[in-house]
Order: sequence, then C-alpha cells, then structure tokens
Amino acid sequence: MSTGLAISLDAMGGDNAPEMVVRGADIARRRFPQAKFLFFGDEAKVRPLLDSLPDLKKVSALRHTVSVVTMEDKPSQALRSGRGSSMRLAIDAVHNGEANAVVSAGNTGALMAMAKFVLKTMPGIDRPAIASFFPTLRSESVMLDLGANVQCDAENLVQFAVMGNVFARTVLGVREPSMGLLNVGSEELKGHDAVKVASGILRQATLPGKFYGFVEGDDITRGTVDVIVTDGFTGNVALKSIEGAVKLYSHFLRQTFKSSWIAGIGYLLARPAMNALRARVDPRRYNGAIFMGLNGVCVKSHGGTDAFGFANAIGVAVDMVTNGAIEKMREDFALLQAQTSAQAAAL
Amino acid sequence: MSTGLAISLDAMGGDNAPEMVVRGADIARRRFPQAKFLFFGDEAKVRPLLDSLPDLKKVSALRHTVSVVTMEDKPSQALRSGRGSSMRLAIDAVHNGEANAVVSAGNTGALMAMAKFVLKTMPGIDRPAIASFFPTLRSESVMLDLGANVQCDAENLVQFAVMGNVFARTVLGVREPSMGLLNVGSEELKGHDAVKVASGILRQATLPGKFYGFVEGDDITRGTVDVIVTDGFTGNVALKSIEGAVKLYSHFLRQTFKSSWIAGIGYLLARPAMNALRARVDPRRYNGAIFMGLNGVCVKSHGGTDAFGFANAIGVAVDMVTNGAIEKMREDFALLQAQTSAQAAAL
Repeated sequence: MSTGLAISLDAMGGDNAPEMVVRGADIARRRFPQAKFLFFGDEAKVRPLLDSLPDLKKVSALRHTVSVVTMEDKPSQALRSGRGSSMRLAIDAVHNGEANAVVSAGNTGALMAMAKFVLKTMPGIDRPAIASFFPTLRSESVMLDLGANVQCDAENLVQFAVMGNVFARTVLGVREPSMGLLNVGSEELKGHDAVKVASGILRQATLPGKFYGFVEGDDITRGTVDVIVTDGFTGNVALKSIEGAVKLYSHFLRQTFKSSWIAGIGYLLARPAMNALRARVDPRRYNGAIFMGLNGVCVKSHGGTDAFGFANAIGVAVDMVTNGAIEKMREDFALLQAQTSAQAAAL
Repeated sequence: MSTGLAISLDAMGGDNAPEMVVRGADIARRRFPQAKFLFFGDEAKVRPLLDSLPDLKKVSALRHTVSVVTMEDKPSQALRSGRGSSMRLAIDAVHNGEANAVVSAGNTGALMAMAKFVLKTMPGIDRPAIASFFPTLRSESVMLDLGANVQCDAENLVQFAVMGNVFARTVLGVREPSMGLLNVGSEELKGHDAVKVASGILRQATLPGKFYGFVEGDDITRGTVDVIVTDGFTGNVALKSIEGAVKLYSHFLRQTFKSSWIAGIGYLLARPAMNALRARVDPRRYNGAIFMGLNGVCVKSHGGTDAFGFANAIGVAVDMVTNGAIEKMREDFALLQAQTSAQAAAL
C-alpha cells in the first residue's frame, strides 16, 4: 500500500467509535476514489461494520488490535503501555510506509506524544505545532500553534510560519499565502521580544508566501492573512474565545426569534437561509487539527464528531498527502536553514 | 468640589469631541443627579455647547486649556510637552482632589502614561492594568489585563485578580465575585509557570470573592466567572478575537437575510426583535476601559463613540467612585500584603 494513497485510521478513537470512523471513511471513499483505508481496531466490532459497507470493504484492510488508549490516559502512560493500541499501531503504519497519513479522534495528548515519538520531528523544526483552519470574512485561514507549546521563542514562531504556509498551499489551495504574526498592535514596536524578533527574521527571509507583518485578534476572523502565527497559549485562547463568542451570538439570536410570535414567523420564513448559514459555519466542515512538523501526516479529529466530520478530517489528510505537504515542508525548511546559516556566516 | 461626586472630563479627546463629550455629560447628568462635571478644553468651542444645555451648565465648571494631545502623539511626547493639555489637566484635577474621577476619549497610550505619572500606582501594586466588561451568556464579566502589560509574572496576575474583583463588586454589582485565571486547559498541570504559581497563591489567599481556578477561552463569553484574569498580550488578543467573531457572525447573518426574498420578509418580521438583540450587544453599552491600580479612577472611553457611549463611560467612573473602588482596593491590597508577608515569615 506504500504507493498510491493509503490512510491509516484509529478505528477505536472518538465518542462514537468505531461506527463513526467506519462510516466517515465510507463518506471519504466516495469523495476520494483513489484512497485506500487501513483500519486498526477490535476486529469483533469493526469487521461487521465493514461487512455492511461492501464498497468500503473493497478498498480497506483491517488489523486487529487488543487495546485502546482511553480519554483518561495520560500521554506518558499511553506511550509506555499503549504499544499494542489501535492508536499506536495506526501511527506505526505511517512510519513503516504502509500508510501515507494517520487520522484519529482519540485522546489528543496521547496522539501527540505517540506521533512525536514514532514519526519524530522533521529536520530543522524544534517543536511540532497544532494547526487548524476556519471560515473568515474573506475565505478560510489557518492558525498555529493552538496549544502544543505554551511558551515559544522567535525561532519557533518562524518555523510555525513555514508550516502554516505549507498548510495553506496544500489544504486551503492558496498559491502564495500571506502570513501574519499575532500581536497586540500592528506597529513595529508593539509586543514582546519573541514576536518582534520573529518579525525581523520573516521580513529578511526569502521563503514561499508573503510576510504581512503583525495582525491583531480581530484579524483572525476578518481573514486579513491566510496564516496566523502565534504561540500555543495565545492561539488556544484565541480559538476558544472565538468559539465562545459564536455560541453567545447564536444563543442571543435564538432568544431573539423566541421573543415574540411575529419574530417567530420571521424565523420560519428565514429558516432555509438560516440552515444554509448553519451549514456554512458548521464546525464539522472545519474538523481536523493537524500536527505539523513531524515526518508524516497526522490529523486529530474532534472526539465528539460524527461520520461527516470524520470524513472531513480524512479529507485534510488526503489533501496534505496528495499535494505533497511533507516534501514541501522539507524543501522550505532546507531553504530557511540555508538562509539562516548564510546570515550567521555573514556576521 | 472635593465632597460629593465630581467627574473631570477631557472635553477635547475623541473623534467627535467636544460635542460628544458635552452631550454625553448631559445624558449622564440625567442618570446621576448628584454628579458635577469639570470640563477641560478650548473655551471657544466648549462654552457655546454648555450654553445650549442650561441644566448641564448649572452643575458644570469649565477650565480653558490651550493644547490638545492628538492621536498621533507618542506617550513619551505627551508626557513631556502635554502639561497644558486638556487631558493632562483633567487628570491633575483628580490628583488635586478637585474631582473624584477622570474620563477621556483621547489617545490611550498618552492617557495611560499621564495617569500613571500623575496619580501614581497604588501601594502593593507593581503594574496597573486595563480592564473592560462585556455581556456573557450568564450576565456580565470583566477581564484584565487587556494590553497594558504584554508580559506578566504570577504576582502581577494575582494583583489583577484583586483589582478585577473590586471592579466586579463596584461596577457589576456582584457581591462575591468569582475569579478565574485564563489558561489552555482547566487541569492543574496545564499552562506556563506564571498561571500555575498565580493559581497557587490565589488558592491560598483569603481575599474577598471566590477563586474558581483555571478557565479557557470559551469561558469568557460563557460567563463561567465574573472576573477573567490574564496577561495583557493574551487578554488583548482574546477580546479582539471575540469582537472579530461577532463581526463575522453578523456579516454572515446579514448575507443570510439577503439570500432570498422570503428570508428578507422573515427579517422584516423579526426586525424589532433583531433591534433588541443589537441593543443588547451594543458596544456603546460596554464603553469604558478602566485603568485599574492607580490612586484615582481613570476611565478611557472609545475614541469613536457617541454621546450615549460616552455617558456610559462616565457611568463606570460614577459607579467606581460611589461604591468606593479605590478604598476597597487599598483594603484588599493591604490584606494581600499581610498574608504574603505572613507566608514569607512562616517559611
């Protein structure tokens, strides 16, 4: 299966696994006819599901696994005792060359720790980062890091910019992505040392994409840039703040439509359009947090998603593989390292 | 004017000053009949406005000032050469005891620098912070710091918690406010050192209010706690991210109602309710960023607001003065210092 497009799936990860995983793969199969699927999980549970989907079964293989990483397992625990787990073996398949990418809806911390341990960090990258994409006023943007590294220096931020840029090219389909550093103001003098130094490096470097400069919190959803670069603390807080704000607004809106019977009729008339709006911001469409910076594609699906959401997480993995994300990152990091060495030699 | 309630106003600060300031004071006068107003500004411009509002004029005094701090002035520049400015003299009035609080819609950086220079930081506080409040699913919450300090240690965060707590008691009317530290997860082990150490201190301390523990980005608008404590970098990004998300949602919603003529009729029927929603989240209702931690009440109004918004910024100042915010902060910081010294002595 090393040629072509093979996706390794942790069939046991997620609230509604394995059914959600198998049905998600079936949706992805229709979208990506070239894809093959390698399931890791409890044969007694997964086999009947595959049997019920003969078209999926034709392009799938199933490996029986005896243990499961639970949501309660600590990353260190999962690393030590999870060697036979569906999650670990699904990751191993990428390392062995049996699969091109792995997708899991299981325990995030355990998946990160295992993927980093097995696939190793790419040369030139100090720390992998979590990236995710979302709708904006303009189109779609990607932000990283979203929580893998709570403290980051300038080098880390520069590396995140390179990774995010590759993501925008390979998944969002942007030819020359713009990158912005998240800060508390757009002036050169604003912010702490890490963002100021990173800005200087990105301004100097000749890399794919365009460095825009500093962006602020409201630029995230405005879509000012394709790639928003920040440390894992700020990125995590910003993304969750946005999710919270959308929930607050939706709640107020529901109350509004319930506030009078005339408003209620208004809602009934607007309902088809409201459903279209809901579909547009449906979090399942943006499902898939990507561990960037490893020697392999690893996508984390939301644990509570359904088959449609899981299929989209598979879609992210397929896009990254098909468009050569790993190769592009290797090239860009070689470029960055050459430029940094040249600058150091010139000093 | 030192007894009673006197509010010092920078009549020249803001996009639509001085008219917006004077009309804002007139709205505030109706709401707070006990208040007196001390205007600092160009007499030729302010006097005619006051003459046109005789009821306001009765409770107002006007001091002619010759210069204005512009939006382009750097804080250092404003400090050096702005001694005769409307902003500086309005702040001086609080220091001299002529007024109990100052409100300005002018240059934020200049106002912070001047207020800190003139009013000085309160004993026990290392750094003042910017606080602001906003609507939540539950009611209203306050968050700080929003950008005064891009890097903060644990002590700073603990002090912000005490300041935010006083704000919730005096402005939001919460008897025993709950406080949460913004973090990337709610578990004890999450986050960087500053939040972990601050959490330990707040858990030990016996202060007014209840320490909730860690909160995440989506807890901000959920209203999980009354006071959200964070460093100025994260707080600024989080608040602006929320503002951006609300704009995105409003934009999508407008598009939704325009997407078909039936949806358009739906909108017409729901319009009165939609207007009520808009009033509920109206940023003018939440106008007023407060510089907490100084020996005096200093409120920054949004520069682009109107008279209604400016009146609300005056309202925040009035609430803080009337409910003894400065005295409460002095008490709480004395309490905190006594506990910290006792702990240090016990070691």
